[in-house]
Amino acid sequence: MQYTKPLAVLIDYFQRFPGIGPKSAQRIAFYLLKMPVHEVEKFANAMITAKETIHYCDNCFNMSASNPCEICSDPNRDNSMICVCAETKDLVAIENTNEYKGKYHVLQGLISPIDGIGADDIRIKELLQRIANNDIKEVILALGPSVEGEATSLYLTKLIKPFNVKISRIAFGIPIGSDIEYADEITLARAIECRREVS
Amino acid sequence: MQYTKPLAVLIDYFQRFPGIGPKSAQRIAFYLLKMPVHEVEKFANAMITAKETIHYCDNCFNMSASNPCEICSDPNRDNSMICVCAETKDLVAIENTNEYKGKYHVLQGLISPIDGIGADDIRIKELLQRIANNDIKEVILALGPSVEGEATSLYLTKLIKPFNVKISRIAFGIPIGSDIEYADEITLARAIECRREVS
Repeated sequence: MQYTKPLAVLIDYFQRFPGIGPKSAQRIAFYLLKMPVHEVEKFANAMITAKETIHYCDNCFNMSASNPCEICSDPNRDNSMICVCAETKDLVAIENTNEYKGKYHVLQGLISPIDGIGADDIRIKELLQRIANNDIKEVILALGPSVEGEATSLYLTKLIKPFNVKISRIAFGIPIGSDIEYADEITLARAIECRREVS
Repeated sequence: MQYTKPLAVLIDYFQRFPGIGPKSAQRIAFYLLKMPVHEVEKFANAMITAKETIHYCDNCFNMSASNPCEICSDPNRDNSMICVCAETKDLVAIENTNEYKGKYHVLQGLISPIDGIGADDIRIKELLQRIANNDIKEVILALGPSVEGEATSLYLTKLIKPFNVKISRIAFGIPIGSDIEYADEITLARAIECRREVS
């Protein structure tokens, strides 16, 4: 059966989003049709507003409605540290820990030859410029343990080394709350490799 | 960390949809921000259009952009059969089988005393009127095997009986493609109870 046209269009849109299959798209569309008209209008406007007002920060390439972004313009944050992330959502995850008070640099991707993404396609040049033009003491590489994350980390390490700043990478190992016996071999190998001396 | 305001609003909206948690909402919002502006506008308009044009059919309470709906106004469908569903999505599922060529009646819910939904809150009165005013030969109850589905089916059977029409219920049993040994006890009991004579 064909859905009534406007509904089919709507379901088709929802289906394009990551993690949403045909059944979920259908459920969401029906839920939307049961929402009050003014709520649907508010939601539609929220989307357009978000899309129109949120841009990349010219300094760190975080997504923000202000430019420079809230983090770059915060005078209470440590200017001498840059935490390098692949995406804004990684930045958000790190912010949620409340552990880090320095600045960020969002690469907007990772080097991935298979997908045709080279070093010039992500914000590496801008990162090097920031390191060159500011008094940076430490660069923390917070890129995931994927092949692309490893490759980008290695590449960045090579490029940043000449600036004589400390370069570190976030730790990979056994996640808190899990059992050692259930850790996969690669994680466990990394956990042993990256062991720290207990003083 | 607080997301930049328009993004937080957007994530909050997506989180309200069924089956979407905070992480999915975040992924969808970021995906949306990476879509071209005109696509976001088209999507927002599709939502408003769907909400504004789709209403319940006055006859069968299916959701449709036309009134009476496409099914009610189709001259090729059997007017003497009514298939009773709880929601439009159940109607769509049945339509997709291509097995049924009669009309429908969407109750827009099921009797559920726990949720405060009584017989007057769903479209039972309208169903009885249709049966009274038309030459109906069979009413198929296509309500799920939940407590509410069973209760509503029993209640409808009692009300429809005086009209002297055939009343049937869709079959519950072992789903096609699965193994009998893996069926749960209740399903298996129903499958035995509802066994059919092989002629």
